Amino acid sequence: MADVMEVGIEDLGLFTDLYQLTMAQSYFEHRKNRLATFSLFIRTYPPHRHFFVAAGLNTVLEYLQQVHFPSSALAYLRQTGRFSEAFLTYLATWQFRGEVWALPEGTVFFANEPILEVTAPIIDAQLVESFLVNAIHLQTLIATKAARCVQAAQGRRLMDFALRRTHGTDAAMKVARASYLAGFDSTSNVLAGQHYGIPIAGTMAHSYVTCFAEEIEAFRSFAHTFPQQTVLLIDTYDTITGAKRAAEVGQEMAQRGRRLLGVRLDSGDMTALSKTVRNILDTAGLPEVQIVASGGFDEYAIAQAVQEGARIDVFGVGTKMGVAADAPYYDMAYKLVKYDGRPIMKLSSGKVTLVEEKQVWRCTSDGHDVEDLIALRHERLDQPDLHPLLTCVMHDRRVLQPLPSLEASRAYHADQMVHLPDRYKTLHHGETYPVRLSAALESAQQQVEMAIREDTASVQ
Amino acid sequence: MADVMEVGIEDLGLFTDLYQLTMAQSYFEHRKNRLATFSLFIRTYPPHRHFFVAAGLNTVLEYLQQVHFPSSALAYLRQTGRFSEAFLTYLATWQFRGEVWALPEGTVFFANEPILEVTAPIIDAQLVESFLVNAIHLQTLIATKAARCVQAAQGRRLMDFALRRTHGTDAAMKVARASYLAGFDSTSNVLAGQHYGIPIAGTMAHSYVTCFAEEIEAFRSFAHTFPQQTVLLIDTYDTITGAKRAAEVGQEMAQRGRRLLGVRLDSGDMTALSKTVRNILDTAGLPEVQIVASGGFDEYAIAQAVQEGARIDVFGVGTKMGVAADAPYYDMAYKLVKYDGRPIMKLSSGKVTLVEEKQVWRCTSDGHDVEDLIALRHERLDQPDLHPLLTCVMHDRRVLQPLPSLEASRAYHADQMVHLPDRYKTLHHGETYPVRLSAALESAQQQVEMAIREDTASVQ
Repeated sequence: MADVMEVGIEDLGLFTDLYQLTMAQSYFEHRKNRLATFSLFIRTYPPHRHFFVAAGLNTVLEYLQQVHFPSSALAYLRQTGRFSEAFLTYLATWQFRGEVWALPEGTVFFANEPILEVTAPIIDAQLVESFLVNAIHLQTLIATKAARCVQAAQGRRLMDFALRRTHGTDAAMKVARASYLAGFDSTSNVLAGQHYGIPIAGTMAHSYVTCFAEEIEAFRSFAHTFPQQTVLLIDTYDTITGAKRAAEVGQEMAQRGRRLLGVRLDSGDMTALSKTVRNILDTAGLPEVQIVASGGFDEYAIAQAVQEGARIDVFGVGTKMGVAADAPYYDMAYKLVKYDGRPIMKLSSGKVTLVEEKQVWRCTSDGHDVEDLIALRHERLDQPDLHPLLTCVMHDRRVLQPLPSLEASRAYHADQMVHLPDRYKTLHHGETYPVRLSAALESAQQQVEMAIREDTASVQ
Repeated sequence: MADVMEVGIEDLGLFTDLYQLTMAQSYFEHRKNRLATFSLFIRTYPPHRHFFVAAGLNTVLEYLQQVHFPSSALAYLRQTGRFSEAFLTYLATWQFRGEVWALPEGTVFFANEPILEVTAPIIDAQLVESFLVNAIHLQTLIATKAARCVQAAQGRRLMDFALRRTHGTDAAMKVARASYLAGFDSTSNVLAGQHYGIPIAGTMAHSYVTCFAEEIEAFRSFAHTFPQQTVLLIDTYDTITGAKRAAEVGQEMAQRGRRLLGVRLDSGDMTALSKTVRNILDTAGLPEVQIVASGGFDEYAIAQAVQEGARIDVFGVGTKMGVAADAPYYDMAYKLVKYDGRPIMKLSSGKVTLVEEKQVWRCTSDGHDVEDLIALRHERLDQPDLHPLLTCVMHDRRVLQPLPSLEASRAYHADQMVHLPDRYKTLHHGETYPVRLSAALESAQQQVEMAIREDTASVQ
């Protein structure tokens, strides 16, 4: 079963980059396992993005409580010939022991702000890096893309149809969850419905229509099986013809005291077709029958359809959301910012990090977000218009408070979006939200940078 | 553990789009479960692509042998209120029974050619669609991207560094496997090393360097732990300074009878830096120390570095390969092409399908691929310059022959690439490989299309 189900609980230890394990062995050998703080953040905005939506924390916390190295993992490591018996013995009982501060899922945040900070013995903090980045990167990527779709839809409903073209099975699940967190209404992914309690939705496929000799026969058959939940796909042969046949079936259902729920468009000029189809349905006395549209939608196509006055009630949003097609990765980094009490920075070209444990404070005015302040974590900034965003979620293997439910996180996210002014939410040409460093953090940065530059200069 | 490990064997049944299950119930209710053939193919080339590399078949075959609906899945379906007890009882003992023809993993193929065809009772063929597309889409997407990187590298070695930014855990595994299939040499993903037997590789992170007070102390410590396998990361503070320190450590190792394996560049102008660093290492008497480069590489950046004469021996290729950044999805479809003996086509705008069970024949001349011919499967085209590509891999739940090992598929793929003329392999402006339809398939297409158009016209 190696191929269908790759990553189980027993596999979490080895789900990491080799260098995490080799560095760990070197730290272990040199007895260099003091407390380290790592900060996870996104360096830059990809094109058209001006905010991000935090997601993936639930996954991370479950991982941190479970990750370990079973004997099968140790046997594999042993046979690579790279690891000492002393280190393998250490790994056999290793568990993550650390403190985690994080943005709650659904939080709106900005470039260079810590999404999550881990303080742990450096071996612990390092071994978990690869999984942490993987989980937070994917879910934040998708929640952000989905939030943009929600903005574009201006209240119209959204269904996640991405399952078949997400990158693998794990992504299919996380896409369903992250898009729901960001305000989607349902998913076609039945397993996500079971696992997360997300409402499931679906229509019918072209294959259903084509396996009947006549389109209308297919429509009638489906309506017979699902008298309350039928959405007919009308573009298999010709959309206008399909709409007329659907209207006929809708009228037949009405005569039986049933109701056709909707029709689906999946190709062609959606705006023009939706208007014509709306007219056909209305003329047939079926104004309550909804129009679902799918096929290549993302935030840009949704916004265009809305602007053109398309009569679309529900968008089925698949591939382009599910792979975040216009920005399929973020420049996300997990960087050492403190080791054994010493603030740490790297200076590689264009990749400066913010030192020390931090807190992000959001400044609001009249119910609107005004700016964020990244400060040293211990700074006390108790002004009434500032509130801290990072909370301590894990300490010494224990999750500190019950995590919010997905529904609660979804509501929290919706509230976050209300407070973010429109100029940061536009799909194109948005403004960059102001993020300042506190004077104390600024000063800490300068001191560390100066010390490194002096050190580097001395050997050149 | 719902969040860490989403999709286990028991979950495979529900890992599908809702409409597959609702259509299945409707087929079941109408006793309409005759043999259907579905064809999986890619409709169009994304920008810059002129060939694809088939991958994912192993995953699919394991899935088809395992997928079922355990009682927990049935309980969930029951509580949705959409499904009849009769249908749930049917699902309780349902297993996939069908015949699968497919391109072997590693096969080079082209737009509109079937990658895989399933012939099964329509309920069976339909329920498995979502997983099949998900698996073949991801692995083909990545194998193709990776094959392009291999072309660009012109013999230089390639390491998969994508794990942390692939879309989820399943993708991290499949990316390691698909890139190795396509000719990569190793992966940083330790679990992929264990599961697939792929060589694992890695260097060190900036955090390792920065947690020591001095860069050279970090280098010496790592070299002490790994006297045979040390690759030093030299760009944490300043790459040239780092290279000089690495050379010093390399000389110290040589004096102890050890050998520094390499240094890694991870930022800046890689071509220029690689030449300078090569010079520093050579001058220090370390010509055997290799230069590894990572950071934003994809086929385009690799090709540019090679063209500029970069002295890079090994490329670490991460995010852009692992998410196929310039083309993160394909227009892949799984379409009904025959039902109960009747050829099937849909005509939705721009989405014409090829009817009936098919075979793809490759025509070669002087050891080079010349053109492909898509024919009806039963056609006999036994010319010496033609050979069929699709093979029957599964019949009635049995995999018909032992699948080739990953190493064998990798060698087969390399051979496929040798036979594909260069003009189809260039990164930009490649030519479109000629794919013809056989006269019999062409004629079948025309007959079906004409019948549909007549039928549609009659109701307008």
